[in-house]
Amino acid sequence: MSSQECLVKRFMQEMAYYILYAAKIISDNEIEKAMDMLLKNLADCKKILVVGAGRSGLAARAFAMRLMHLGFSVYVLGETITPAVGEDDIIVAISGSGSTKLVITAATAAKDVKSKIIAITSHPESPLAKLADHTIIIPGRTKLAYEKDYTVRQILGEHEPLAPLGTLFEVTLNVFLDSLVAELMQRLGETEQDLKKRHATIE
Amino acid sequence: MSSQECLVKRFMQEMAYYILYAAKIISDNEIEKAMDMLLKNLADCKKILVVGAGRSGLAARAFAMRLMHLGFSVYVLGETITPAVGEDDIIVAISGSGSTKLVITAATAAKDVKSKIIAITSHPESPLAKLADHTIIIPGRTKLAYEKDYTVRQILGEHEPLAPLGTLFEVTLNVFLDSLVAELMQRLGETEQDLKKRHATIE
Amino acid sequence: MSSQECLVKRFMQEMAYYILYAAKIISDNEIEKAMDMLLKNLADCKKILVVGAGRSGLAARAFAMRLMHLGFSVYVLGETITPAVGEDDIIVAISGSGSTKLVITAATAAKDVKSKIIAITSHPESPLAKLADHTIIIPGRTKLAYEKDYTVRQILGEHEPLAPLGTLFEVTLNVFLDSLVAELMQRLGETEQDLKKRHATIE
Amino acid sequence: MSSQECLVKRFMQEMAYYILYAAKIISDNEIEKAMDMLLKNLADCKKILVVGAGRSGLAARAFAMRLMHLGFSVYVLGETITPAVGEDDIIVAISGSGSTKLVITAATAAKDVKSKIIAITSHPESPLAKLADHTIIIPGRTKLAYEKDYTVRQILGEHEPLAPLGTLFEVTLNVFLDSLVAELMQRLGETEQDLKKRHATIE
Repeated sequence: MSSQECLVKRFMQEMAYYILYAAKIISDNEIEKAMDMLLKNLADCKKILVVGAGRSGLAARAFAMRLMHLGFSVYVLGETITPAVGEDDIIVAISGSGSTKLVITAATAAKDVKSKIIAITSHPESPLAKLADHTIIIPGRTKLAYEKDYTVRQILGEHEPLAPLGTLFEVTLNVFLDSLVAELMQRLGETEQDLKKRHATIE
Repeated sequence: MSSQECLVKRFMQEMAYYILYAAKIISDNEIEKAMDMLLKNLADCKKILVVGAGRSGLAARAFAMRLMHLGFSVYVLGETITPAVGEDDIIVAISGSGSTKLVITAATAAKDVKSKIIAITSHPESPLAKLADHTIIIPGRTKLAYEKDYTVRQILGEHEPLAPLGTLFEVTLNVFLDSLVAELMQRLGETEQDLKKRHATIE
Repeated sequence: MSSQECLVKRFMQEMAYYILYAAKIISDNEIEKAMDMLLKNLADCKKILVVGAGRSGLAARAFAMRLMHLGFSVYVLGETITPAVGEDDIIVAISGSGSTKLVITAATAAKDVKSKIIAITSHPESPLAKLADHTIIIPGRTKLAYEKDYTVRQILGEHEPLAPLGTLFEVTLNVFLDSLVAELMQRLGETEQDLKKRHATIE
Repeated sequence: MSSQECLVKRFMQEMAYYILYAAKIISDNEIEKAMDMLLKNLADCKKILVVGAGRSGLAARAFAMRLMHLGFSVYVLGETITPAVGEDDIIVAISGSGSTKLVITAATAAKDVKSKIIAITSHPESPLAKLADHTIIIPGRTKLAYEKDYTVRQILGEHEPLAPLGTLFEVTLNVFLDSLVAELMQRLGETEQDLKKRHATIE
């Protein structure tokens, strides 16, 4: 066995360890508040709009699929069917740098119509975090390497660093969002039973 | 601190442990052969087409973005710009169950024109694995829970189980593909230096 | 002025004349029945799912955008947010040849759950038309030139003829769907006024 | 036959007449220069990137599909595979109002790297037209009704007017782009034959 093929597995291990590290770093209170906002959104029959560019946008879509499976009225900015959002709807805006222009534009517009913004970013001082009603900090790039806008980067062909460090935000993001879904599912499982019980007694 | 918010982090930890487990299970030889096929594809100026449905399709796109950054001629089935593939082009076909109709249809057509198929699936006995020139087994669902086609499921609204078990293929897939990219980057870094050295001496 | 640049405008004229011809050919009864189905769908709070591949898929999305603007619960097969459909929901399935595998698969699944299928095709004897609850015939290709599946064609790189004849179905389709929207808007404009009047008197 | 179902066909006729009107209005010189730029792009092995939001974005994709069929290296902004563009690549930027923020952002970035911008808009005095190296004016909305950005509109739910007037830019755009493709096909058909003849004599 050559040493080369082990490298892929070693990268997998490094990423797994990074996820374990991230699981310690992420704030319980930030998670809990986001969970409460999402559950209230569902209870109030409000909408959720997920927003992200590039690979964060793909993670946002994977999250949206699961939220739809759980019964949320959830949409993806940029796809064909994206209805208006308004007061008390939620924008889940994802940007590692917190500076992606598409995401900032969407969040600013959302704020104007009094939607609530949940930001997911590595940078608590970023423009996105400052706009947001609530921010979840996911560790990733250690410094704000890329100020430039995603759309601009697509044009210029300047992409994120390919090194593991660049990928860590996205890897952690995927696992974090899937874990959030797993807990939402558990909580709603209970809530759905409760709803059925109450419904049956009212009838 | 309530016990509820810990759950998200516990799920993150469980997924990280699952990735560590998967890193042991995945075959070195399967990785190595895939790596060789991809590097030969690049050296021969051939094309890669990634294919997947639902969340596997999103993982396929995230992989395709990185391959593009590395200089591959890579495309995504179903997007606007998807050129013909032919002899010795590679189809990376991703399906946890190995039975997704869209993926099978694409792989069958690819085989007819003598493209090479790299399948990524949990099921070595699945239709996709049987079609493929090379298969990488990623652990995931322990049994073939869903025979039904993705398109059919979208219509019927029967989605994958939301439980951690259902998500594990996708989580592992994302980390595996990013690790593959990290190693490709390293190898191509060397190869690019070698190319430059050789180029300089020829000039 | 060279004769060459006139050609673009001559093609535009030819397409406009083809649309005028199509406007005579398309059946009033077929339009009227589709209109009734769509308006009943809206009144009953049911869902619409549009399905198409390639350029027909793009026309389907443009139609879906407008239906959403009009208040329909409309979705696009293949995008992130595509909920289950069921009894009395409507599938608008578009395929010039009436043989596109993706569209047939979706329509078959829809039939199983007792959704209604509105097919838009050039071929009344095609598999899609036979599956459909209602078919609107839009003139286009004069013979079923392409039996092969869209996914297969994307793989093989065999595309529709680029000649004006190949484009005519799509050009007519776009104008037809926009005209359908214009009339739906007018009818719903009346209905909305009526609703407001009734609402006001109830209050 | 009721008067209602005739309305759809009357709208189709109106749109066809509008296309005939537009075919007179559009400048031969503007078409000819765009054609030259596109053919030079192909001859020089340069890239084309199409950009548009909403329904203009769908028309842009339909155009990109055909350009790919004709052998152009063409890409769609916002899809997974969008490589860097640079000097002498072409951006085809489509916006009826000429003020769509996504399109302006992309065009500005493209200008910075010395790509050429072909704008397609109804408004010769719009920001997009001012940025562009070459502009094709397609008649549409008679006044700049919507200053607001597309992304912002998606958030706010303020959409283009549904009236025929709002749709006319898009309908004309689709037919114009398909006519451009038809002529490019004819010219390249000749050029390809010429290439083959010259190639054969050299061999």
